[in-house]
Amino acid sequence: MRSLKLTLAYDGTNYSGWQTQPDRVTLQKTLERALQRVVGEDIRVVASGRTDAGVHAFGQVVGFQTGTQLAPEVLRQALNSELPLDMAVLEAVDAPADFHAIVSARRKRYRYVLEDGAIRDVFTRNYCWRCYCRLDAAAMHRAGQALAGTHDFASFQTAGSQRQTTVRTVFELSVARGQGGAAERITVEIEADGFLYNMVRAIVGTLVEVGQHKRDEAWPAEVLDACNRQAAGRTAPAQGLFLVRVTY
Amino acid sequence: MRSLKLTLAYDGTNYSGWQTQPDRVTLQKTLERALQRVVGEDIRVVASGRTDAGVHAFGQVVGFQTGTQLAPEVLRQALNSELPLDMAVLEAVDAPADFHAIVSARRKRYRYVLEDGAIRDVFTRNYCWRCYCRLDAAAMHRAGQALAGTHDFASFQTAGSQRQTTVRTVFELSVARGQGGAAERITVEIEADGFLYNMVRAIVGTLVEVGQHKRDEAWPAEVLDACNRQAAGRTAPAQGLFLVRVTY
Repeated sequence: MRSLKLTLAYDGTNYSGWQTQPDRVTLQKTLERALQRVVGEDIRVVASGRTDAGVHAFGQVVGFQTGTQLAPEVLRQALNSELPLDMAVLEAVDAPADFHAIVSARRKRYRYVLEDGAIRDVFTRNYCWRCYCRLDAAAMHRAGQALAGTHDFASFQTAGSQRQTTVRTVFELSVARGQGGAAERITVEIEADGFLYNMVRAIVGTLVEVGQHKRDEAWPAEVLDACNRQAAGRTAPAQGLFLVRVTY
Repeated sequence: MRSLKLTLAYDGTNYSGWQTQPDRVTLQKTLERALQRVVGEDIRVVASGRTDAGVHAFGQVVGFQTGTQLAPEVLRQALNSELPLDMAVLEAVDAPADFHAIVSARRKRYRYVLEDGAIRDVFTRNYCWRCYCRLDAAAMHRAGQALAGTHDFASFQTAGSQRQTTVRTVFELSVARGQGGAAERITVEIEADGFLYNMVRAIVGTLVEVGQHKRDEAWPAEVLDACNRQAAGRTAPAQGLFLVRVTY
């Protein structure tokens, strides 16, 4: 058996998230069906993480075992012929035998896109969280720096999830407003050694309250110290979230 | 009765075009239903032109008569509350009593978006024509200059359409490749005093053959002179086309 690694982009709008569920169209099921057609095997893939319904990816990573002899580039093109146009395999490579898309991951990077124009943009409705009040992106950036570094992020995980530890290291957290024609767009970039369930969306929901001047810039640090999900802001909606890349 | 003028943006992906048809979800029907809810009248709107299924608009213009006393800005906001998120009223203003969205139009501007990257972009699939071979945008631009000016565009209209004249004046036709992160995107901009049915899509389909070096740069001028639709290239697909603005 060979170990293969795929890098995938997808528009999550029309899917009930990554993970296979009965009677739902999911990204995992769609990929596994395409693999079945191309290599003729029932393959179970493992993704670096399960994105929720409506969440997108520029670079999701998936690993699987297969007996196929196809060259990776041939496999990539054949999969793209089978996949719907809202999924694309960007890269296919042979991976070490012990490669595991979750366990082997060292860093993940997410992007969250906000828009704060007075008039909604009909073309970005599935790719951002539209806030109808002006956001102070510079204040959000300054406030967010308290979350960089190694901390217990228990305040920023959705209740009910089970993890061995809620300590994570955030390598970078930046908030920046676009230039020129993208001046209504605010991009939050977060890279960490791993993320708790809904962590990016809880951080963004918290930073948005700073951006609206409902809370002061010291507040996210207080939320972090509370180690209590009730202390944080709302969970930002799924459609603004993009998994950018996974580093192994 | 008052005469009102709306400027609309829409993502045409989920609609069977502009014009009301039985048992189809159309943009006209959706707008008229929202108007009915807001002003309590059965209103028939007139658009500057009927966009086909899958065609988008940054600035479609619509006129209608109404007895409502609502201020235009109040009407605009109320309509946006009723409309789905893939339609937006950008502006509502009182218009002269004799305003007619088709007859009063002096210029229309369309944009057609092509992408020629080797790997498809899952996020732009509904907003461009993806060409899997590299296009020579500079050659397309040069070849297109033969179409600027006043000409008989009979070669560039879909057969079967009835117009009094097939002579139109093209004020501008430009083809340009994007910069930086948009280097795989080629934008065709065409402004004219009016367009024949499918004229932009027929022009783009013709210029793409020049961009692929299947035809030389003199060919679009020959197509124009032929006054015969069979002489031109294929009709480019709907989803790359945007109605940018209508000038009155």
